[in-house]
Amino acid sequence: MTPEEFRRYGRQVVDWIADYQEKIESYPVLSQARPGDVLAALPVHPPEQGEGYENLLADLERVVMPGITHWQHPSFFAYFPANASGPAILGDLLSAGLGVQGMLWATSPACTELETRMADWLAELLGLPAAFRSDGPGGGVIQDSASSSAVVAILAALERANGGRAGREGLTGRHTLYISSQTHSSLEKAAKITGIGAAGVRTVDVDPRTLAMDPARLDAMIAEDAAAGAVPTMVCATVGTTSTTAIDPVAAIGEVCRRHGVWLHVDAAYAGVAAVCPELRWLNEGVADYADSYTTNPHKWLLTNFDCNVLWVADREPLVGALSILPEYLRNQASESGEVIDYRDWQIPLGRRFRALKLWSVIRWYGAEGLREHIRTGVALAQRLAGWIRDEPGFVLFDHHPLSLVCFRPAWDGLPEDEANEATKRLMETLNASGDLFLTHTKVGGRVLLRMAIGAPATREEHVRAAWRRIVEETRKLEKSLQ
Amino acid sequence: MTPEEFRRYGRQVVDWIADYQEKIESYPVLSQARPGDVLAALPVHPPEQGEGYENLLADLERVVMPGITHWQHPSFFAYFPANASGPAILGDLLSAGLGVQGMLWATSPACTELETRMADWLAELLGLPAAFRSDGPGGGVIQDSASSSAVVAILAALERANGGRAGREGLTGRHTLYISSQTHSSLEKAAKITGIGAAGVRTVDVDPRTLAMDPARLDAMIAEDAAAGAVPTMVCATVGTTSTTAIDPVAAIGEVCRRHGVWLHVDAAYAGVAAVCPELRWLNEGVADYADSYTTNPHKWLLTNFDCNVLWVADREPLVGALSILPEYLRNQASESGEVIDYRDWQIPLGRRFRALKLWSVIRWYGAEGLREHIRTGVALAQRLAGWIRDEPGFVLFDHHPLSLVCFRPAWDGLPEDEANEATKRLMETLNASGDLFLTHTKVGGRVLLRMAIGAPATREEHVRAAWRRIVEETRKLEKSLQ
Repeated sequence: MTPEEFRRYGRQVVDWIADYQEKIESYPVLSQARPGDVLAALPVHPPEQGEGYENLLADLERVVMPGITHWQHPSFFAYFPANASGPAILGDLLSAGLGVQGMLWATSPACTELETRMADWLAELLGLPAAFRSDGPGGGVIQDSASSSAVVAILAALERANGGRAGREGLTGRHTLYISSQTHSSLEKAAKITGIGAAGVRTVDVDPRTLAMDPARLDAMIAEDAAAGAVPTMVCATVGTTSTTAIDPVAAIGEVCRRHGVWLHVDAAYAGVAAVCPELRWLNEGVADYADSYTTNPHKWLLTNFDCNVLWVADREPLVGALSILPEYLRNQASESGEVIDYRDWQIPLGRRFRALKLWSVIRWYGAEGLREHIRTGVALAQRLAGWIRDEPGFVLFDHHPLSLVCFRPAWDGLPEDEANEATKRLMETLNASGDLFLTHTKVGGRVLLRMAIGAPATREEHVRAAWRRIVEETRKLEKSLQ
Repeated sequence: MTPEEFRRYGRQVVDWIADYQEKIESYPVLSQARPGDVLAALPVHPPEQGEGYENLLADLERVVMPGITHWQHPSFFAYFPANASGPAILGDLLSAGLGVQGMLWATSPACTELETRMADWLAELLGLPAAFRSDGPGGGVIQDSASSSAVVAILAALERANGGRAGREGLTGRHTLYISSQTHSSLEKAAKITGIGAAGVRTVDVDPRTLAMDPARLDAMIAEDAAAGAVPTMVCATVGTTSTTAIDPVAAIGEVCRRHGVWLHVDAAYAGVAAVCPELRWLNEGVADYADSYTTNPHKWLLTNFDCNVLWVADREPLVGALSILPEYLRNQASESGEVIDYRDWQIPLGRRFRALKLWSVIRWYGAEGLREHIRTGVALAQRLAGWIRDEPGFVLFDHHPLSLVCFRPAWDGLPEDEANEATKRLMETLNASGDLFLTHTKVGGRVLLRMAIGAPATREEHVRAAWRRIVEETRKLEKSLQ
């Protein structure tokens, strides 16, 4: 494709995206495709000859769009949001256009140094501790996801626990990792990936009301495991769980970690970015004093499209120790000088995209003020929704909703628990199938709850209100049919 | 950013990229930035207020571009190429614009099903075995890199070796992994990540002439290790090593693997895509009969921008067994029906971008014919270069150059080996510092060789010829100064 052709088709694609943004509300939020529909509409064999780009754009409409669930739809409340804002998309486009590889400082110095500065900017915006800044022993790095950050944090923790020998010698002893029943599933997956195994993951009880991890129970479990010959290696505290935005007591957990010499990883994937607002900084209480590593996702709620997770460590030595490899063809003067960061030693893959461009693009376009406004809008809409739920007869509101996720369900008066759960799921399926909105569910203390997460840039009060109206309407219908 | 603003700035960014493509030869290939230059040009603090996009584009020119090493420059011969073609960039742009998450089939069916079809298309284009197609027990998946594919392949191999209990129970025995001295460093890194440890990686001797792994030696090592109580778990055979494009004898290695019940992973990261040309299908001899997993990178030499690696497995069961986790909030009818693929169980992270769009975009724009032409151009230019090196007095050509990488060095007649090595490195540094071209080096049998990898879409014969002229010129100067 010549630059002239790129110019022509590039404009078409930009216009296509702008049109999509304008008409997104005309689509059903949840794709109504059945398994195999998209596959059946695609040719079985690849084309022998190339074709014009117009054909692809036509097939995009005809074949792909019916199979899209619209994460950018203002009535998408299902998972945590995935903010694909304009400046983020453009930052990603610049990255694709430059087409550089940032595996080493030397392979494109700007890719590394802009990332270092963006990690520092974000640490400042979120009020994260000085230890996480690049001018000390720690630093930040962009990863694809909080899942990968969890793997990397575990490897650093293993390296420290084994006196710098884990990467070389492999896992020898029995290592244990502490989470709660509310911790994201990626931690168990990370335990499987790093060789600890699901069996090495110990689930600490939570307070049944707040769903926060019980530090006393954690303390006891670590002591028991250590006495039984295991090596307690890492605790993952969560700030804002996926299920209900429960918040583990980081400071109390950190005390326990310090006493036992265990690595503290703080997973603030969704909630961490909310600390851009000073009034929400309480979220990170304890992080400054105790966290060895901390991660949050600008690609969830901070107007940056997927993928853009940031991981900070207070000490980069065990991280680099766990992941560094130096073959001859990657040797270069800059790396050997020790003056530069080679981020390939901070992550699983060798290659890396220039993702700092989109963070730079987002932070400069919105400014700290714009970012705060976005978070505040999400929180305010969620609080309004919680109020409506509280005021509506026949609904049960889950009491904890400090940010932009609200969990609730119809009371289903008179129904036994398992039938009530079935009814809640049926309600959700009916609503999702309508295409008007998209919700998910979770289970708390055996009860199925609906999860409604607010935070897409396009979501305004009218969308939340319309969703709530539809929920009440379908609930009343279902209540009638169940009588 | 409103859709109208996105339209306006989007066009500016598209034009910026087209301009960049047009004037790329005016930049020095290798960035001349020193450590800290870019960092020093960036504000220490993030902006409080948002600003117009024009400011960012201005700073991109002023601050970022001097720190860019131009991977898309036609005189970039340093690492394997990173083909950011127009249709690939546009495919990525569409993915960013749609902003969907393909972690589950249900979260955007088209994201999963287009990927399935693209993996099948690519398998057909490369003549890969039927076992890798999605309609059998195996299948293909897009990963970020061959590094991540190596991790995932090891996890599947561990799962199979441990009777499906590795993920659950963690690593208990001593597992061994077999590579050669020429295998990519990501395999050792993957061993560190998965808990096998660098010490569990056994390096098999290579034929000193071809640098290909010695299957008889592999056989003996596996037998020795098994007798000593280790569990030989995986062999990685490479088709086209990073250092010199050495090609391991996959069929003979596969025989050894089969005899010992060991997983065979084939890393064809760079070379695999060359099999799009029927005359290069010999590269994959043995793959159909023996490979449990196989990986290649469209993002290197197949006109697709980073990241786009494809991993195929002959049997998806141990892979999914190793990586599957199912929390309540991800449960859904489609997954439970068993009718769909959830690709999050085929990779390390949970989240995933819609990367199939760029592969679709590339394959349709170029067609099989266009892809073949691109590979053939790279191979032909490399063979021409090899001819010039062979014909030039005072140069030594490394004899193996079947694809688009050529290794060579000046003969440095009369210099002892270590001084010759120093002179070769000095030559490379002089050439790279000039900005006219960018090369890397490797070491074979103690000798430093220059690596010149051809394959950028913009590279034509004139660029290879100009590079060669510069190499000869600087060599003659250096020869004089050394006399």
